[in-house]
Amino acid sequence: MLYLIGLGLGDAKDITVKGLDVVRGCSRVYLEAYTSVLTVGKEALEEFYGRSLILADREEVEQEADTILKGADVSDVAFLVVGDPFGATTHSDLILRATKLGIPYRVIHNASIMNAVGCCGLQLYKFGETVSIVFWTDTWRPESFFDKVKRNRHSGVHTLCLLDIKVKEQSLENLMKGRKIYEPPRYMSVNQAAQQLLEIIQNHRERGEEPEVTEETLCVGLARVGAEDQQIAAGTLQQMRTVDLGGPLHSLIITGGSLHPLEMEMLSLFSIPESSSDSQSVNGR
Amino acid sequence: MLYLIGLGLGDAKDITVKGLDVVRGCSRVYLEAYTSVLTVGKEALEEFYGRSLILADREEVEQEADTILKGADVSDVAFLVVGDPFGATTHSDLILRATKLGIPYRVIHNASIMNAVGCCGLQLYKFGETVSIVFWTDTWRPESFFDKVKRNRHSGVHTLCLLDIKVKEQSLENLMKGRKIYEPPRYMSVNQAAQQLLEIIQNHRERGEEPEVTEETLCVGLARVGAEDQQIAAGTLQQMRTVDLGGPLHSLIITGGSLHPLEMEMLSLFSIPESSSDSQSVNGR
Repeated sequence: MLYLIGLGLGDAKDITVKGLDVVRGCSRVYLEAYTSVLTVGKEALEEFYGRSLILADREEVEQEADTILKGADVSDVAFLVVGDPFGATTHSDLILRATKLGIPYRVIHNASIMNAVGCCGLQLYKFGETVSIVFWTDTWRPESFFDKVKRNRHSGVHTLCLLDIKVKEQSLENLMKGRKIYEPPRYMSVNQAAQQLLEIIQNHRERGEEPEVTEETLCVGLARVGAEDQQIAAGTLQQMRTVDLGGPLHSLIITGGSLHPLEMEMLSLFSIPESSSDSQSVNGR
Repeated sequence: MLYLIGLGLGDAKDITVKGLDVVRGCSRVYLEAYTSVLTVGKEALEEFYGRSLILADREEVEQEADTILKGADVSDVAFLVVGDPFGATTHSDLILRATKLGIPYRVIHNASIMNAVGCCGLQLYKFGETVSIVFWTDTWRPESFFDKVKRNRHSGVHTLCLLDIKVKEQSLENLMKGRKIYEPPRYMSVNQAAQQLLEIIQNHRERGEEPEVTEETLCVGLARVGAEDQQIAAGTLQQMRTVDLGGPLHSLIITGGSLHPLEMEMLSLFSIPESSSDSQSVNGR
């Protein structure tokens, strides 16, 4: 049996009791290492689970799926995913590959950022399509995701923006020379995402358009959702450019405009103080 | 401290290790009993947690929040919610009430139907606004949610339909006579939801409109997501009217039209056989 097990969002103890039982009984346990991070490392997980983990990065999952699945028809293999197993498409790949080999699979779900963002008080059913904001480079500055944000806002629904993660990236030089030397991991902050959004808004204005999302649009910045030191800050997009939410992972929500009174009241728990919008944020669980 | 703890979707062992630790250390533990159900009852939870649970229905949470919060400033009180604590607005109420009383709170997240539906292979970020389908009565047959489904479909995004749950409802007679006698719980099935949708489509046609969602629109019916005997069936809305998915809880997805090849391939694992669309479904994890 192939088990896909969600680890949740915080630390080693966010795995479910069912998930932990399975991990302890499997013959091999892989840890997906490329779409997300917990606040603790592989070693902390290994110590708590009492099992050694095999790191599987994107390359390995795509190129060596058969190695991962080897023997899973006669023994149990676990594939651990931060959050829930159905955040990234690559896990569909693994399931389809298993199914073709006649290997049964089971999913043990957990919280993912897709539902845990509800902790800020915005109602989950009022979120529209989710967008991803990627790091811009000198030559690649995609803006097309902004159409989805505008469409959501026009429909009065919130937009969850997933912020870019660069793990195990090679520099162009190392890539061309075939050297497996990797850059340090990079995680987009709410500040960087807001900066790019503000530039896109400016670009729209220069083309004579007045976008539905502006500097004054109410946004929510979230950091390390589900962890002990989680932070949430509600304020304008302009304020998101400078709010300090600490280390990764960050997410940004662009609200849909008309909020329910309960949503407003919850957000007020996390609002950035007027006088210190450049440096502070509100700690919230 | 007030702890809001998600129980996940399947059975007693779907609580997280962190959540279980907290439950075992709290002075009182409440179990929310009105928005959802696990496949096991209160007794199974009590046995596994080693704690007695106090059932809290909607009335009690709204009217006796202060009883629930009593002493939570000096001891720990847990409030258990099936799925994740941020599916229903009433939990915002409880948090706001706690905050006003100066009681700190923490959330221990878990899977909810809002993210676990990803198990059918449809990509979570491609879901639009979520809708609720309620039981029609002789005099109340709301259709307005269908506008959201059409808007989502028009934007090419999927719609998760949460299906009605009637727990602790009183008959009109008992309500008027002030008798606290409750009707047996009712859970809307995928069949019933599809039937209502088909009627709405027919009503649109009678008004001369050709709706974007028709009998042939690809849908996914899900039952008991996260439980051992979970079922998923992919087929047309017409097929959803008769597919047999077994007991509650059910959910229905109306797809957004253009699917990614990986989404198609995943759905094909769950497709209703052509020859037996009236009685069978495909069992899928």
